[in-house]
Amino acid sequence: MSASDCAPRSARDVARYDLEADVVVVGLGMAGACAALEAQAAGADVLVLERASGGGGTSANSGGLIYLGGGTPVQKACGFEDTPEEMFRFLLAASQPGAREEKIRLFCEGSVEHFHWLEAQGVPFKRSFHPEPGMESPTDDCLVYSGGEDCHPWSALARPAPRGHKPQTEGKAGPYLMQRVLDTVARRGLRVRGDTRVGRLVQDPADGRVVGVVGRSAGEALLVRARRGVVLCAGGFVMNDAMLFRHAPILARCSMRAGTDGDDGRGIRMGQAAGGDVVRMGQGEVALPTTIPNRLSRGIFVNRQGQRFINEDTYYGHIGIESLFRQQGRVYLLLDEATYERGLLGLQATWVAESVAELEAESGLPRGALEATLSFYNRHAAQGEDPLFHKRRERVQPLERPPFALIDSGTHAAIYATFTLGGLETGAAGEVLGPDGVAVPGLYAAGRTAALFCGSGYPGSGSSLADASFFGRRAGRAAAANA
Amino acid sequence: MSASDCAPRSARDVARYDLEADVVVVGLGMAGACAALEAQAAGADVLVLERASGGGGTSANSGGLIYLGGGTPVQKACGFEDTPEEMFRFLLAASQPGAREEKIRLFCEGSVEHFHWLEAQGVPFKRSFHPEPGMESPTDDCLVYSGGEDCHPWSALARPAPRGHKPQTEGKAGPYLMQRVLDTVARRGLRVRGDTRVGRLVQDPADGRVVGVVGRSAGEALLVRARRGVVLCAGGFVMNDAMLFRHAPILARCSMRAGTDGDDGRGIRMGQAAGGDVVRMGQGEVALPTTIPNRLSRGIFVNRQGQRFINEDTYYGHIGIESLFRQQGRVYLLLDEATYERGLLGLQATWVAESVAELEAESGLPRGALEATLSFYNRHAAQGEDPLFHKRRERVQPLERPPFALIDSGTHAAIYATFTLGGLETGAAGEVLGPDGVAVPGLYAAGRTAALFCGSGYPGSGSSLADASFFGRRAGRAAAANA
Repeated sequence: MSASDCAPRSARDVARYDLEADVVVVGLGMAGACAALEAQAAGADVLVLERASGGGGTSANSGGLIYLGGGTPVQKACGFEDTPEEMFRFLLAASQPGAREEKIRLFCEGSVEHFHWLEAQGVPFKRSFHPEPGMESPTDDCLVYSGGEDCHPWSALARPAPRGHKPQTEGKAGPYLMQRVLDTVARRGLRVRGDTRVGRLVQDPADGRVVGVVGRSAGEALLVRARRGVVLCAGGFVMNDAMLFRHAPILARCSMRAGTDGDDGRGIRMGQAAGGDVVRMGQGEVALPTTIPNRLSRGIFVNRQGQRFINEDTYYGHIGIESLFRQQGRVYLLLDEATYERGLLGLQATWVAESVAELEAESGLPRGALEATLSFYNRHAAQGEDPLFHKRRERVQPLERPPFALIDSGTHAAIYATFTLGGLETGAAGEVLGPDGVAVPGLYAAGRTAALFCGSGYPGSGSSLADASFFGRRAGRAAAANA
Repeated sequence: MSASDCAPRSARDVARYDLEADVVVVGLGMAGACAALEAQAAGADVLVLERASGGGGTSANSGGLIYLGGGTPVQKACGFEDTPEEMFRFLLAASQPGAREEKIRLFCEGSVEHFHWLEAQGVPFKRSFHPEPGMESPTDDCLVYSGGEDCHPWSALARPAPRGHKPQTEGKAGPYLMQRVLDTVARRGLRVRGDTRVGRLVQDPADGRVVGVVGRSAGEALLVRARRGVVLCAGGFVMNDAMLFRHAPILARCSMRAGTDGDDGRGIRMGQAAGGDVVRMGQGEVALPTTIPNRLSRGIFVNRQGQRFINEDTYYGHIGIESLFRQQGRVYLLLDEATYERGLLGLQATWVAESVAELEAESGLPRGALEATLSFYNRHAAQGEDPLFHKRRERVQPLERPPFALIDSGTHAAIYATFTLGGLETGAAGEVLGPDGVAVPGLYAAGRTAALFCGSGYPGSGSSLADASFFGRRAGRAAAANA
């Protein structure tokens, strides 16, 4: 259609197809696997094309947490009350502005069913709670507070419940999660073709319907017909420097990108070229895990002006987004002798001094600013209070025992890990929507090829895999049902 | 091509055209007028289609400031030294992250020539300076500091120079500016067709080339062939609620939208449907003019935590973006008896009290927070210093004379005026770029249908008209040169 190398090929120009299926799924990470399984369950003949030799994608490289709630068996077994409505309240609030209310509602109402479905695909969850919030447990324990649900401001808006669910395995669960899901994909006899890179869609010029894909495999072009639909589950664009600079330049400042080579944005660009709209392309998950373990949040974060800017006890993803997008990425954690320890990252104090005034001088913070901040903080902390940011009482204690330490958390000394949250705009069935809100017929997307279900921000660890799996399933079903 | 009502029509399906031109310009605001004039000057037969009965668009509704520099005759006459390099330094810094360096360089290097060109089109500029910064003068004076160039942090990065140029007329200059430009359009005999709404492009399915437009006029379809190219200058999308919610939900909080009915995003959507990419769709100009006149910046802005967050003397557009995007839109201006006055907006103090502690109680700010902030500020202000934000010395004075006043500047009591800055991604010649950076042949865009030349933020008043006129001209020339 144009000089663009992502532009769809016209179906008129395709004389014959090498392969056919009812539903063609592009990419075999979490979203693609779930789409394929559900399309097959709905009676469709499915073909999955994956550019790597095997499935897994970025999901297999993740911590494996999945955000689920509303009263899952794990939540119940661990004594946490949760309802779809409380989960909805949290996610809606944490997703503003621009929350996709319909998607969030579907996601919350379907969450318990989704939990059972995942278990039925061979992904087990231990009925146990891990008290350290924020990220997956190092043990095989399951449930964690992964979005600051029990922290300000969310704790006042919805009854707190932990919703991060980790598959039952020691340590990082992404590889195990994907192994279990891929085993099921294999057991169900799904057709998967690896080492096959999809570069373009095939589109009927008469009505814009997507009817296939153009791939390459072993140096040969491969034309694949999709009788009912194509589901793009090809990852995000965090590994594409040009796209990152164009759409999300602030994310390029992060020291670590969570992705594989596959996250080159090709899926998004193919979808755009076929008429899909993109949204929230500037947004990302941003992890700043300085306060792991969470007792490090007894310290205080300050910005370049020596001012506090967040309740330190909250999810490190909220801290990361706040730091990078609103504090110019220049933030520091102040600790005293009583609260200092080397946390998860093993970070050493950047500056240590016997007085806060010395710390200001060494770090270049404005003279007196940190002292003023600490004086205000300590005065209230002595009474267990944090009137500015309402940190949980158990994390509030005066910082008064020298030496004092300041950890530069905004530069490469710390870790800002990121992946992209923007992508193709999809409806609740995973259908790709055009700029005027009309679906591109035959085209679906899920996982990070699509924009996350949230408006702005990133509500908690496990949201991306939850979105990928839940809406991946819906996309697979919708494509299968598309006559 | 699809069910989308913005999708291009295939040239194969067009049996005959009602009208023809070398270059078809869609929209007759500042960008469209400049594109048309330059395309004609380059030898093209031009046709302008405008949905309103007459030209002007949102440009005619603006203050009329145009950001120009590098040593314009007005700058020189008023004794301000400026060079393209200093202008570039300021714009590059103020445009980070994601500054479009090539465009900014072209813009700075071409700025003096652009000034002369505007005068040659009948837009006069008085050789005079207006000392009140931020917005156009109420008199017919020309030059103003319109981007905080002489304020922190820019003043340390580039030699300050005022660059806001107002056409020579009393008061708001947008209507006059557009009248002069439209007079020239008429005098040059350019073909303009009003009351003609363009809804789709016509695209050659063979190579993706844009070869015309589909319009409606007096209830009849109108097919227009463009032999060389189409330039979309159809405004932004601030008046389209669905698009604003989808792409820029935070801007929907603004109490005033600067636009006309034409800013419905149609131009952007047509361009997308033809293969164009969109960038920075979440961004907007955000004006929070609480500190006009600028001596009101002797007060201090605080956020919900009672903390300062910006040097108050800077451009109210920087303050607006900072307030809305980074301070949740909840900001307050604190004044004392010595600094209080009702400014441009005529805002009255929301709360008045004999002590700051009372103000805190009345406004609901955390107890002691404002007192701590003010104590720190006053201590340094007594020495003419602002160690946190480096406000200009002449605006720094202790706030110590009761009664104290707090103006709620973040709600509907104040004015957040906005327009959108995101749109089609264009190259330096105004060519519309697809998701992989390849131009859509025959398609150009300028004005707010295209993304502003800057990365993030909005560098100063007059940037939008400057971008529209400068890159509008380039788009017109490129389209005319397109064989």
